Amino acid sequence: MLYERIPDFLLIMLCLLPIVCINGCGPKEQAVSSGKESSQPQRYGMVIGLKPEKIEYYKKLHAAPWPGVLQQITRSHIHNFSIRLVELKPGEYYLFGYFEYTGDDFEKDMKAMAEDAETIRWWKETDPCQYPIETAKQGDKWTMMEEVFYHP
Amino acid sequence: MLYERIPDFLLIMLCLLPIVCINGCGPKEQAVSSGKESSQPQRYGMVIGLKPEKIEYYKKLHAAPWPGVLQQITRSHIHNFSIRLVELKPGEYYLFGYFEYTGDDFEKDMKAMAEDAETIRWWKETDPCQYPIETAKQGDKWTMMEEVFYHP
Repeated sequence: MLYERIPDFLLIMLCLLPIVCINGCGPKEQAVSSGKESSQPQRYGMVIGLKPEKIEYYKKLHAAPWPGVLQQITRSHIHNFSIRLVELKPGEYYLFGYFEYTGDDFEKDMKAMAEDAETIRWWKETDPCQYPIETAKQGDKWTMMEEVFYHP
Repeated sequence: MLYERIPDFLLIMLCLLPIVCINGCGPKEQAVSSGKESSQPQRYGMVIGLKPEKIEYYKKLHAAPWPGVLQQITRSHIHNFSIRLVELKPGEYYLFGYFEYTGDDFEKDMKAMAEDAETIRWWKETDPCQYPIETAKQGDKWTMMEEVFYHP
């Protein structure tokens, strides 16, 4: 279901961070922790299209997700993870994911997820249900969104 | 910025809840608490369009939100509230809101927000930036999204 491409995204964001910080408009969720454990979770939001003919199957899968997939999500320090569905235009559906990352090496944790056998099997089921949004970076599946407001 | 119409939405959802529960596909975030304080926050996700020519002003407003507005959000038991921006199609922008509700009377808390003078002034700034999605219910501003997956 998730994020083979997030490490690429993160790398680019890390390179851009000094620039966007200077300009005062950096995505707030990209705060980088240098400690072993983030003192505060880093928030992520992402979006992807869902094929209308796959809605039923996608919902069925996610109503009873495979235990091994959930265990890998936890091992990769992803928490409070929810996915929402919306019909944004008539017949046009999108999934919106929100999660919090509590680890200290996002790239490493996402790599571990992408190499987990059960997760790979799960993605073989979910990938054909989804399609990247029109503005997605070449090769991306989910597109990360910029946080413009936060209130604890 | 928020939710004059959420009470309407909530009422409809409360009416529909028995039906969708029977069908096993009710939005999970609509769990109703009968206690004084929810033992677990109820999660909400919502979406609205953002006019391209208003992006800069919207971001500027939300980079320094008015203290009175934030205080009312807290008084209305809304926490961990973030808004994200994405260009879903070339030149077509959307805002995605995620928040957690910790109170025991969502309708009452949203009404209090809608009646707060500072919040009313804030919405006079933010409303002209936004437009409801094509599939929004008549009169709705933000459209609530159905949660299809959750992992703590």
